[in-house]
Amino acid sequence: MKPISATEAVAAIEAGTLTSEALVRSCLERIAERDPVVKAWVYLHPENAVKQAKAADAAKGGLLRGVPIAVKDIIDTYDMPTGHNSPIFEGKVPFGDAACVALCRTANAVIMGKTVTTEFANRHAGPTTNPHNPSHSPGGSSSGSAAAVADGHVPLGFGTQTGGSVIRPAAYCGVIGYKPTYGDFSRVGIKMQCHSVDTLGLMARTMPDIALFRGAVLKLPPVPINQDLAAPRIGFCRTPIWGDASADTQALLEATAKKLSAKGASVVDVEFAPEFADILADHGAITGFESFRNYADERLRNPGKLSPEITAVLKRGGAVTLERYVAAQRKSVAFKAHIDSMFDNVDVLLTPSAPGEAPEGLLETGDPRFNSIWTLSGNPCVTLPAGTGAKGLPLGVQLVGLRHDDERILSIAAWVAARL
Amino acid sequence: MKPISATEAVAAIEAGTLTSEALVRSCLERIAERDPVVKAWVYLHPENAVKQAKAADAAKGGLLRGVPIAVKDIIDTYDMPTGHNSPIFEGKVPFGDAACVALCRTANAVIMGKTVTTEFANRHAGPTTNPHNPSHSPGGSSSGSAAAVADGHVPLGFGTQTGGSVIRPAAYCGVIGYKPTYGDFSRVGIKMQCHSVDTLGLMARTMPDIALFRGAVLKLPPVPINQDLAAPRIGFCRTPIWGDASADTQALLEATAKKLSAKGASVVDVEFAPEFADILADHGAITGFESFRNYADERLRNPGKLSPEITAVLKRGGAVTLERYVAAQRKSVAFKAHIDSMFDNVDVLLTPSAPGEAPEGLLETGDPRFNSIWTLSGNPCVTLPAGTGAKGLPLGVQLVGLRHDDERILSIAAWVAARL
Repeated sequence: MKPISATEAVAAIEAGTLTSEALVRSCLERIAERDPVVKAWVYLHPENAVKQAKAADAAKGGLLRGVPIAVKDIIDTYDMPTGHNSPIFEGKVPFGDAACVALCRTANAVIMGKTVTTEFANRHAGPTTNPHNPSHSPGGSSSGSAAAVADGHVPLGFGTQTGGSVIRPAAYCGVIGYKPTYGDFSRVGIKMQCHSVDTLGLMARTMPDIALFRGAVLKLPPVPINQDLAAPRIGFCRTPIWGDASADTQALLEATAKKLSAKGASVVDVEFAPEFADILADHGAITGFESFRNYADERLRNPGKLSPEITAVLKRGGAVTLERYVAAQRKSVAFKAHIDSMFDNVDVLLTPSAPGEAPEGLLETGDPRFNSIWTLSGNPCVTLPAGTGAKGLPLGVQLVGLRHDDERILSIAAWVAARL
Repeated sequence: MKPISATEAVAAIEAGTLTSEALVRSCLERIAERDPVVKAWVYLHPENAVKQAKAADAAKGGLLRGVPIAVKDIIDTYDMPTGHNSPIFEGKVPFGDAACVALCRTANAVIMGKTVTTEFANRHAGPTTNPHNPSHSPGGSSSGSAAAVADGHVPLGFGTQTGGSVIRPAAYCGVIGYKPTYGDFSRVGIKMQCHSVDTLGLMARTMPDIALFRGAVLKLPPVPINQDLAAPRIGFCRTPIWGDASADTQALLEATAKKLSAKGASVVDVEFAPEFADILADHGAITGFESFRNYADERLRNPGKLSPEITAVLKRGGAVTLERYVAAQRKSVAFKAHIDSMFDNVDVLLTPSAPGEAPEGLLETGDPRFNSIWTLSGNPCVTLPAGTGAKGLPLGVQLVGLRHDDERILSIAAWVAARL
């Protein structure tokens, strides 16, 4: 059975032309075939998945009825371990589900299993490979969910983003990634890295699937993609780190701006005011100050079980002073207002999803900076697959919307996706 | 042994004139004597406490060396259950400590035990009584920590505030409560009610103890209280719900303003701009929208184990639309800026800690609205004991500082406390 979208699956299950059991068994076959190479999953219990599928078939309705979902392994599940890719948590089963998981179960989804994360959603990589080329990274930290959705294991996956952990792996793996406005999605049961920026995100292969998945996580009737949208006003935002994007990424963004302009969009250049040229340093100060304290228990009781990478990250965070942290918090408030003001004249910002293709090797998961800017600002972001780079690996373009205007950015993203 | 402050205890332990073991045994005796009436503690393991005390005696240094601390029972501890006053979590021992607990252990504190919370820090009350009169509520949701500190069981206690859960019980029990600027203290390992407002807070009997405790939780050298502070500029902020304060509370605030003016402070009246007269409705919309989703797992898998009170609260929250939530979030941003602007002309706001004395009976923990305003705004708050009301129970006055300027508000609070 060819991979289908969640939207198609729900419709077919409701129509009686497909069963969740058949869908889930087909996904399990795909995983059995592919995961020895892709290594997206850290926990899978096929009998439990099939049991949930049978229950979904027997049930009535539900926004995600019968659809299997991948859950990043820093998100709690009451019936599966949540290991955080850390020996400290290996094999430990939480007392309850994260709210986002429970909301999907409420929508009659099938919680398929747990996908590989970097250690504590930080830098130390897991074994997952890029489905397009196993000698390349899938990106991180939501490595497994991005790879699983890209490779057709499941139609939907949860990721989380503190720096660039949803948008970047989605771009590297060639799927759609959506980071909602900061604060809209519940974070209960998701290991907190940095409360000021942590954001639950979604991965799928189609924009209607993103809208459907969002509805379930918000426990609201999904707002369908507006298919009759007028051509948007686009602000082309190269960002202060444009020079760090690869030549093919720069060319892709320039070409995308031209192509969308030719399709009727207006495109203007927008730039950060000079005082925000170093806004990434403020993201670093906030995440550093918070994460050092957030891992107080692991540092005190299990320092030997933390990787050298996270140990170094936390140590740097511990050097951030309270004064520096406060200055960064105040600047982030001003930055949010600055970005808001850009939307007086445009509907969406166009910007790179990542500096380039996925890096070679599995030790480095790539540079999150094109994402961290927008994690700090709290704006909703969508990455769309947009061709391939010099090595034949996926490249993405990132669309950034006004905060709290997520329904609009999803429709704009669909408009753009149809014209790429 | 008479109850002593944490600051005195650390000094005596460092000087060798007191041992943590003696202090902890003395506290355990006090608890054994008083807790049959006060019922502040839900979990206590005297041998474990004494063991920690002996370790603190054997150790060197630490900001809180040897000091026993009360921990509200929605805050994780690796060596004690964290029950949330809910049958869903009864007896369950988390995998790790909350960051704030680990930071206290890092500072060589003794984690004395777990104190009674209302169910999930919401409305369904626990058994704790007001130490000043057992037929009255201690307030909530941090009932046990407030009562334990007030009654001399321990010098320090952790509470949390989503509405009025630190400042109100502290005021009702006659101790100092401190809610820091939103975001400064780590919330890892604390059950999330509403991420937009949840704040970890501290309770103690002296201002130097609050400053010391804060240093440990921030893992920073504590900034001592400035004892040479010039008389502050005070903004007397009656708030839009002034009419709901009892006559004795209104009289107390008016008298406090006069008294501090006589001591050299300048006092001016400050008022919310008219568009923020209903800001409490926005606090309600935000907490309602978030908490409904945050308890998705409990609602799905254990609805019968939720009290009628929280079931009703969550149901009301579920009726808040996304549009209403977003409007409230946007308004809270404007409200924060509005409150910030008040500090152009004053150093501190003076406002009630609660509408009046602790309510009679144990079913109702009192009205949080004089606190919810400032939980939404994110400003640092201190409640100081300031005499008694008509029924002989404690009354407090609340001081509100500029966001991110906590060291200043603590020194101002000490200035005020010395003159009440």
